Amino acid sequence: MSFEITTELLENISSYIEASNDKAIIVLFEEMHHADIAEIIDDISFDDAVYLIKLLDSEKTSAILMELDEDIREKILQNLSAKEIAEEVDELDSDDAADIIGELSEERQEAVMSQIIDEEHVREIEELLAYDENSAGGLMAKELVKVNENWTVLKCVREMRAQAEEVTRVHSIYVVDDQDKLMGRLSLKDLLITSTKTAISEVYIPKVDFVNVHDDLDEVSNKMRKYDLEAIPVVDDEGVLLGRITIDDIVDVIKEEADKDYQLAAGLTQDVEADDSILQLTKARLPWLFLGLLGGVGAFIIMEGFQDVFSKYAALFFFTPLIAAMAGNVGVQSSAIIVQGLANDDVKGSINSRLIKEMFLAALNGFVLAIFLFAFVWAYEGKIDLALAISVSLVIVIIVAGLIGTFVPLFLNKRGIDPAIATGPFITTSNDIFGILIYFMIAKMILGI
Amino acid sequence: MSFEITTELLENISSYIEASNDKAIIVLFEEMHHADIAEIIDDISFDDAVYLIKLLDSEKTSAILMELDEDIREKILQNLSAKEIAEEVDELDSDDAADIIGELSEERQEAVMSQIIDEEHVREIEELLAYDENSAGGLMAKELVKVNENWTVLKCVREMRAQAEEVTRVHSIYVVDDQDKLMGRLSLKDLLITSTKTAISEVYIPKVDFVNVHDDLDEVSNKMRKYDLEAIPVVDDEGVLLGRITIDDIVDVIKEEADKDYQLAAGLTQDVEADDSILQLTKARLPWLFLGLLGGVGAFIIMEGFQDVFSKYAALFFFTPLIAAMAGNVGVQSSAIIVQGLANDDVKGSINSRLIKEMFLAALNGFVLAIFLFAFVWAYEGKIDLALAISVSLVIVIIVAGLIGTFVPLFLNKRGIDPAIATGPFITTSNDIFGILIYFMIAKMILGI
Repeated sequence: MSFEITTELLENISSYIEASNDKAIIVLFEEMHHADIAEIIDDISFDDAVYLIKLLDSEKTSAILMELDEDIREKILQNLSAKEIAEEVDELDSDDAADIIGELSEERQEAVMSQIIDEEHVREIEELLAYDENSAGGLMAKELVKVNENWTVLKCVREMRAQAEEVTRVHSIYVVDDQDKLMGRLSLKDLLITSTKTAISEVYIPKVDFVNVHDDLDEVSNKMRKYDLEAIPVVDDEGVLLGRITIDDIVDVIKEEADKDYQLAAGLTQDVEADDSILQLTKARLPWLFLGLLGGVGAFIIMEGFQDVFSKYAALFFFTPLIAAMAGNVGVQSSAIIVQGLANDDVKGSINSRLIKEMFLAALNGFVLAIFLFAFVWAYEGKIDLALAISVSLVIVIIVAGLIGTFVPLFLNKRGIDPAIATGPFITTSNDIFGILIYFMIAKMILGI
Repeated sequence: MSFEITTELLENISSYIEASNDKAIIVLFEEMHHADIAEIIDDISFDDAVYLIKLLDSEKTSAILMELDEDIREKILQNLSAKEIAEEVDELDSDDAADIIGELSEERQEAVMSQIIDEEHVREIEELLAYDENSAGGLMAKELVKVNENWTVLKCVREMRAQAEEVTRVHSIYVVDDQDKLMGRLSLKDLLITSTKTAISEVYIPKVDFVNVHDDLDEVSNKMRKYDLEAIPVVDDEGVLLGRITIDDIVDVIKEEADKDYQLAAGLTQDVEADDSILQLTKARLPWLFLGLLGGVGAFIIMEGFQDVFSKYAALFFFTPLIAAMAGNVGVQSSAIIVQGLANDDVKGSINSRLIKEMFLAALNGFVLAIFLFAFVWAYEGKIDLALAISVSLVIVIIVAGLIGTFVPLFLNKRGIDPAIATGPFITTSNDIFGILIYFMIAKMILGI
């Protein structure tokens, strides 16, 4: 019963469109979930997509638009008139409406807003557009169910029924005072099991989790995960209830954040998918590769500077890929641990204590690895001084690499820069260069060249 | 109003425990959320943690246990008697209860199960323990609200009230037939806005998303994300309703999966946190580093095999870190795109078409990079043949690295192995070796050595 896109289905759709068989199309999509239709639209030609969006009613297409890939949505919106977009926006909750409007050029924004009939909707969208998109305000919706603490239960239930029709999912009923300040909540479950004669002020739960409208989305998602919340109210600095954030939006935030961190660690500068065009993929991949190229050129220059060593200890040069690889791997490991710890808000203690811990850790790892390398070089090359020089350098390179990997994300985070950019090619490239430089310097010292 | 652990709070707690001031402790924790108490317990000494768990009532401690770090929970459970664990398990929903029991040794499992009073709870736990923990059955809870399609609304509301008291969050009311087969659902919102006189069979929504008990958790989370579901019913092959999965558990699954993939890409073999001990961190970091060491030794052996080239073209050797870095970076990029595409279920088409696309992509990237490298080597070394040899090799190395990075995760996935292990050190190490080997072979050929 799971939905799946078949070639047959796609062929049917395109033949209907070619024949302008609108009735068949409407029947076909009538019972289909908007997320499924969005998947189909991602897969068909752009002209067909625009045809479908213009044909289907805006209650359906507005929901479809929200599920489309951002670049496809952008292109479709460009093909709709301001009036058509306004019709879509009219159907959407305030948060989705603000997202759509926010994607338009300023000119178009005004044109669309002037076409929206519901003035309250316009006011709400304008309010939401003013918030930073990475803050609670940028994600919240204005639609929620709230009751006044001074109401009777009878009035409350009547008001709630009216409000509930506007709200996709109810979750919690928030209780406010006359100044609209958040006082507590009523749970739906309590409503199910409480007699209707009880007074609001007696039944509401005064303890309620909330976030400030300016809170970072990371904070919001950590709080909702920690307390297993399905919705959280958003208040301003005075405690006035402004909106609410639901878990389905937070799930998307968590997934996007995770994808972004993963892509940064893998050296991708943009959000790309396997099915994107070669040009899009190149734009995401080339920048870090170019950085890697510069790093490699740096390593070349360093090695050339040490080339007089070659006549006596050629083997030293043959270990440079090993040194670079170890420096890179250790750097990525230590930075990844810090980046993840920072995201989960469980990196405690000072930067110094982190660095001291990493020093011991890297020294331990380096020592174990150096023993193996020492044994190999001694056995293979038969030179104990060379084996010693390479192994000792390895330990020091690993310690330095670990320290750089630990320090850089902590430093970036302190400066308010996303520490995730420190993982991946950035760390491997800088560690390659530092690693090779340190390696030759230490080896030269030990070998007395 | 956000909860925060202060040194003062921790000192208070430890002084209460030292003085055995149980009353003060109980008062302190009375109003505190179990997730906050769990954070405190993660931070205090192990003996104090056990003291608190034994002191507080099991309604609270069972919820605390579920929020603890897995290794701390394991240690605490070892310090509780079978009877004490049974008391905790008694308080938990079936899914959490099964998780706790599943972490015990088989011997202890039996001892604990025999102490649980509620026989239905025992049966439910046993049922859940039988499912694969990565399947829908391994995550679902047995607690849910269901009504029979043949009931009157009056009976339905009465039954629901009783059931709702057992269920932490209601979400949906599932409608089943006499054979317990899932027929549809009643929404809470509909209940709010529908007259109580309506018959069940008339109001229920026959369209309901569900998953099979053997479905993979990835499928479950993709479905819940796609359709913005907050709970999904789980059925067996005959369509009989077995349990339900709620979004808070799926949020944890998404987060854990993302953390795991990130750690694999960064070369960490276990789930570690910044605050883990040096020994735990070493256990997670050393295995991949050792693989990197072996890769480096492989590169050394290859380079030594080409050492006769050195007298004429020493510069060739100075570019090996560059070649290795580019091969590694390209491999990680292409594998990350595939791994992420597979997780999101949007890698379409055959392996061959993927490989052909990657070949063009890598060739394009490689060509752009090679132009720069060519110009640099020619200008710096003044040898056009050397510049040509290095640049052409770079292009070929990048193409091969991209193909390996694309092929390996697709291959692993086909074999039913988690493709995420292909990213990170695995790809960089193998690409280092292949890259250097190809580089010298091509360069030798072009230079005619």
